[in-house]
Amino acid sequence: MQPLVKLIYVEADPPSLGDNTGDIDRLKKIALTTDSGKDFFVPFRQMSPVARNFRDSGFKGWLVVNDLTPGYEIVDFLAEPPDVLPGMALDLGTTHLEASLVNMLDGTIIARANRENSQINYGADILSRIHFAARDDGLSRLQKEISSCIQALAVELAGRGGLKVENIRSLAVSGNTTMVHLLLNLDPYYLIREPYIPLVNAPEPCLAAELGLNFHQAAVVWILPSVGSYFGGDLIAGILASGLDLKEETSMLIDVGTNAEVVLGNRDWLIACAGAAGPALEGGVARMGMRAGPGAIEHVAISQDSGEIRYQTIDGGRARGICGSGIIDLVAAFYLNRIIDIRGKYRPVVFPERFIETVDGLAFVVVPATEAADGEPVVLTQVDLDAMMRSKAAMYAILTTLINQVGLEFSDLRRIYVAGAFGRHIDPEQAITLGMLPDLPLDTFKAIGNSSLNGAERILLERQDRERCIELIHKITYLELNVNQEFMIRFSGSRFIPHTDQSLFPSVPYFNDA
Amino acid sequence: MQPLVKLIYVEADPPSLGDNTGDIDRLKKIALTTDSGKDFFVPFRQMSPVARNFRDSGFKGWLVVNDLTPGYEIVDFLAEPPDVLPGMALDLGTTHLEASLVNMLDGTIIARANRENSQINYGADILSRIHFAARDDGLSRLQKEISSCIQALAVELAGRGGLKVENIRSLAVSGNTTMVHLLLNLDPYYLIREPYIPLVNAPEPCLAAELGLNFHQAAVVWILPSVGSYFGGDLIAGILASGLDLKEETSMLIDVGTNAEVVLGNRDWLIACAGAAGPALEGGVARMGMRAGPGAIEHVAISQDSGEIRYQTIDGGRARGICGSGIIDLVAAFYLNRIIDIRGKYRPVVFPERFIETVDGLAFVVVPATEAADGEPVVLTQVDLDAMMRSKAAMYAILTTLINQVGLEFSDLRRIYVAGAFGRHIDPEQAITLGMLPDLPLDTFKAIGNSSLNGAERILLERQDRERCIELIHKITYLELNVNQEFMIRFSGSRFIPHTDQSLFPSVPYFNDA
Repeated sequence: MQPLVKLIYVEADPPSLGDNTGDIDRLKKIALTTDSGKDFFVPFRQMSPVARNFRDSGFKGWLVVNDLTPGYEIVDFLAEPPDVLPGMALDLGTTHLEASLVNMLDGTIIARANRENSQINYGADILSRIHFAARDDGLSRLQKEISSCIQALAVELAGRGGLKVENIRSLAVSGNTTMVHLLLNLDPYYLIREPYIPLVNAPEPCLAAELGLNFHQAAVVWILPSVGSYFGGDLIAGILASGLDLKEETSMLIDVGTNAEVVLGNRDWLIACAGAAGPALEGGVARMGMRAGPGAIEHVAISQDSGEIRYQTIDGGRARGICGSGIIDLVAAFYLNRIIDIRGKYRPVVFPERFIETVDGLAFVVVPATEAADGEPVVLTQVDLDAMMRSKAAMYAILTTLINQVGLEFSDLRRIYVAGAFGRHIDPEQAITLGMLPDLPLDTFKAIGNSSLNGAERILLERQDRERCIELIHKITYLELNVNQEFMIRFSGSRFIPHTDQSLFPSVPYFNDA
Repeated sequence: MQPLVKLIYVEADPPSLGDNTGDIDRLKKIALTTDSGKDFFVPFRQMSPVARNFRDSGFKGWLVVNDLTPGYEIVDFLAEPPDVLPGMALDLGTTHLEASLVNMLDGTIIARANRENSQINYGADILSRIHFAARDDGLSRLQKEISSCIQALAVELAGRGGLKVENIRSLAVSGNTTMVHLLLNLDPYYLIREPYIPLVNAPEPCLAAELGLNFHQAAVVWILPSVGSYFGGDLIAGILASGLDLKEETSMLIDVGTNAEVVLGNRDWLIACAGAAGPALEGGVARMGMRAGPGAIEHVAISQDSGEIRYQTIDGGRARGICGSGIIDLVAAFYLNRIIDIRGKYRPVVFPERFIETVDGLAFVVVPATEAADGEPVVLTQVDLDAMMRSKAAMYAILTTLINQVGLEFSDLRRIYVAGAFGRHIDPEQAITLGMLPDLPLDTFKAIGNSSLNGAERILLERQDRERCIELIHKITYLELNVNQEFMIRFSGSRFIPHTDQSLFPSVPYFNDA
């Protein structure tokens, strides 16, 4: 284990008349004899306290160093070894933050916590926040907001671990490129303007204090690098977690958040692309869509005979809405029950009693008002369906464009990793029915959980993963879909269930009733 | 020339859909193709402005980098090359600051200025300032004082060069170890306590802003490293300036400030020591002693027949006191005219009319009140004389201890470099008469001026000199005189004029009239 912050025990000869070496110089010299792999340096701001502690400890004790690229940054000196050296790993999502407190001494997880991204008050999605950032003080307000939000999360984590937030000595951040720009107070203006260039993909580590965080005064912030505006450090984290880049066999990684981000490759090559496939799946776009949370319907089935609808909410409570996996189940069931046609349009001749008219067109009542949590029925409108159809079409078009780009076919893949909440909750069979995921054996698909957070945890603990990140961003070929003709053609072909070319989905029943 | 701050012209391809490289990453990449000797890094605080200027300049222009050890620190991006890239070189003396503003583009000196060290208000000498630093807030007050003093000097330099102080992009500092500690806000407590260990000898470069200086916001401060508490960066500067460490032949460097610091060696080895030989020579100790400045007597001669005293002040004006070189001339003349005996005691039988009684014992009136600047006679008391005798004895004892340490004799030296005001003003012949400098051909002695300032200027301009400094401090063997028995014995033998062993000074007349 080569954590981002580590202890090095040193024991120097006390100074004598025969040796004029200054305290700090002595410390650097003795440290080099203990760990000669890297240079040691002491930043100006840490010189005084480090030298004082070194002397007060009788010139022996535990050096605390940040393991950075130019060398070990000496940040502290302790007479006694601490029980815990806490670092915070953060999945910095657009809507949600998930974090863990990790003991960098042994890799154990001390606590986990999560929290809504309070920047939501300034804009629900990436685009509206980028517009907000362009206002006077907009960027700085967004930065302060996310900084406070992270601080609150850190306080919560520290409290759960029986620690003080000032004990936290590092922060590893995995997030999409926009969220990282907003955290670093970097103008996100060009991220959404052709040719979509980040201000930076691989920033140098900085101090937590420079971001307005009140952690340990020498706490270092390590940001997982991005590959482009639409390929963030969160996906790099996914590669770390899946090990895609280390395997001889070619595999695929799919991460669906606000965007669908896909990586294909093996230890020799990696190709990636991203596209706006996610909104309908994540919630916030579908009228009843919501994040996976209390009251969210995560699975649905419709009895073909009775039309009875069985559903399951995440917490077993009354339904409030439908999250991504629930929508996929529902639409697949719609298709199999012929409640929709292959274009995704409602056919109210089937179970007509379930339909109502809304401002968003026809809507299917999934849960009647009497059974729902807030006395409001849970419905899926034609508008929601259309969004869902676009998303699923985009997803499949992305996957096919990518695999075609390297001259492979889906059947060449033994493994498709599916990251995040999407991977955790989705039923691959239903997604295949919709023509969203390729028609492969179900055990091809492997959910890898919150790989963004997992990647950030790895950053705290392993130097080789930190180095791997930097190598990865140079190894990945990024395919820009915004200008890809093939993608547009494939997108059109994918706007049917399961697809215009039914031979691609042999396992899915086909109905020609458009 | 490899200056501390330099411009690198870069011209990057504008970003395109085919290349997702972030602006900062693009800049680092293109910079590496231009100057591949070192890595480039962009500190957090500079990312935004550098990226903005790079983009606004159409992705071409002049990169401004600080040439540091871990790599080039990118601090600015300019659309047009500046006419001047100013850096400040500073000789940070205990009593006096001398500085120059250097154009790092071509090495020209833009302006020079000097100023009293305003820390004098808190203590005239090193020792009293170290005591002051131990008080509550004492260190921080001394730091603020020296910072303001340097800022004022920088404003003066910038004004003379028609520049703004915010244009100054670097500061190279050459000073004694205590002054460097006070500038860096480092506790000087242990510098004067056995075993005399600095908090640091070779600090990392820091930001001018971290020292409270209002230069360019990214201005870097490079401190010449010290070897020990009594061997400061100012003497390292002297070695740079003399080239002692590059020559095949063995030579010696003498720098007399508050202490006498001496280096002996050649390109293969260097040995050094320091001792308190200076006070009587620099002023502040002798009652009439003063720094070389207006009204200071720098040369004196006494006519052997008439006893007529001819003297010369630095500015040609009325006499106010005597500076180091004047005291040496005077005491040598005293000796040759037998006004003092070989122990340095007054013999008022010679020119009795010149003597008066004072609280400090007998005093010789060099300039009567009627001729002096302030209506106060310029006198040299027996107490002053005793101090002078101790100083000269210490100086010779230091030189002989050092040369003896390596088994050489003075006659092996073709060159003795004499640094600073002492070197500029002293007449080696008189110093030999006193037995202060060895009895060598006069052309052996070469004044090298303010080598402390010159060394700081070199630091601004030459990477090889910056690297040389760091190598030097590891190459120098430091001889601690505080515990050296031989030094104490040699000191006793040197407390006569010219010496107890007259064979050492064949060119000096000898009088046995003690």
